[in-house]
Amino acid sequence: MVKLIDGWQVARTLNAQTQVRVARLRKQAIVPGLAVVLVGHDQASERYVRMKEKKAQSLGIYSVLKQLPADSTQEDVLQTVTALNQDPRITAILVQAPLPPQLDATQVFGAIDPAKDVDGFHPENVGKLYLNLPGHYPVACTPRGIMTLLAANQVPLQGANVVVLGKSAIVGKPLAALLLNAGATVAVLHSQTKERRSFLSAADVVISAVGQAHLLTDADFQPHTIVIDVGQNLDENGRLVGDVDYSEAAVNIEQITPVPGGVGPMTIATLMQQTVEMSEWSK
Amino acid sequence: MVKLIDGWQVARTLNAQTQVRVARLRKQAIVPGLAVVLVGHDQASERYVRMKEKKAQSLGIYSVLKQLPADSTQEDVLQTVTALNQDPRITAILVQAPLPPQLDATQVFGAIDPAKDVDGFHPENVGKLYLNLPGHYPVACTPRGIMTLLAANQVPLQGANVVVLGKSAIVGKPLAALLLNAGATVAVLHSQTKERRSFLSAADVVISAVGQAHLLTDADFQPHTIVIDVGQNLDENGRLVGDVDYSEAAVNIEQITPVPGGVGPMTIATLMQQTVEMSEWSK
Repeated sequence: MVKLIDGWQVARTLNAQTQVRVARLRKQAIVPGLAVVLVGHDQASERYVRMKEKKAQSLGIYSVLKQLPADSTQEDVLQTVTALNQDPRITAILVQAPLPPQLDATQVFGAIDPAKDVDGFHPENVGKLYLNLPGHYPVACTPRGIMTLLAANQVPLQGANVVVLGKSAIVGKPLAALLLNAGATVAVLHSQTKERRSFLSAADVVISAVGQAHLLTDADFQPHTIVIDVGQNLDENGRLVGDVDYSEAAVNIEQITPVPGGVGPMTIATLMQQTVEMSEWSK
Repeated sequence: MVKLIDGWQVARTLNAQTQVRVARLRKQAIVPGLAVVLVGHDQASERYVRMKEKKAQSLGIYSVLKQLPADSTQEDVLQTVTALNQDPRITAILVQAPLPPQLDATQVFGAIDPAKDVDGFHPENVGKLYLNLPGHYPVACTPRGIMTLLAANQVPLQGANVVVLGKSAIVGKPLAALLLNAGATVAVLHSQTKERRSFLSAADVVISAVGQAHLLTDADFQPHTIVIDVGQNLDENGRLVGDVDYSEAAVNIEQITPVPGGVGPMTIATLMQQTVEMSEWSK
């Protein structure tokens, strides 16, 4: 029997903790403030942004949406970011990706004050993570959420063989850094990898962040593998599925995050966690 | 027959190119300036620093050594770094590691102006490397030197299985980033790794940066493996050796960097290369 790793449950617990922390700050007249910058009308982005706003408000976080037209100039976006950097009510800034093609995303993300960079995308925060520096700094929310999920399910990482599929700057690479910092042996596989078998056959934990339905099946894993599925794909029938096909009869997968209901809820819960932490850190 | 990868030869070529670039800058009245900060009297550090100074001078680089006493305070070191940040003759600053235990190394390295951080240790530069950002920024010299050595020996990296042994912030981790950026499949192994066999038996390239004599022998590799040995160890007889034992009769190692004469010369040559590049970038 495959055990499902329940992301909703861990996210609920985390959100409850965040709510308590917000209340504690509010007693000291400190209100965490999250600003989301949305450029254009990408449907998925609009949906995510609404979810983030709603969740923030429900936890007592002050929330602002800065919506800019799709044809905004670099100047427009940078001015918005600069104004938010200087706004004392805002402690956390998130620029929703992807940005329209006329914009230089690197420059936009780099313009966010590192102390308000709630997504952990600023080079300075990325560098601190890779250097495993002590002290407080934000980390990309999906990878951090995955680490919380693994910890909540008592998955041992020290000395474990972990395979990460995907080398994006948002998931694969920061995840590899977090796992190395936790003492795991880490192999990062991606679209140019010539064969996955030798890696998967030695893996204790496999984290797939490729975004391709039917990429892996139970037969690809060794017995007792723990699988974290970061994929969010629409299959042939328009159903939301992850990267991994499995059934209750799977013999190799020991635990897996379902899609939906696994990693997804953890990303937003971690964003909220980090929003309140950034308020605490800047006290 | 094992082919030796000649680091001296590649370093000589690189140094000759650097010398030409320095001469070109000097014609425009620009002189690259390297400042080395040495705190205390660690013997190995003093030797390295002298080698760096000598090499810089021989290439036409203006070179300054700031020697501080072993009992320097954090304040003393930060003041020295700040003065060098502001000194227009200095385009590249290197604080020689390790620092005496009373000093906060993280704060010292973080205090170097990222535009003068010739060792590529500042979080902002580390982050740019991991994000694979476009534009110019310095990268840790030993990993970058290894990439130059691999390129000079036409070692294909795209899709290759590369095993990195060691996860230090100076070698293992930035090397993993450079290799991923170059399209390699990368596994990072370290002291907590439970078994190396499954990784080594699938590796096209193995880079060992552990610092342990006799760690690996020819029998650990699969046929046609290319080995980069970053180890600098003294063996039982006080002889400088790498991490890998091999003889001319090795059957699996196809190419290897000797110790000494492999990676070592590339580190200083890359430091010189980066010193002159930082002058060019800031023109």
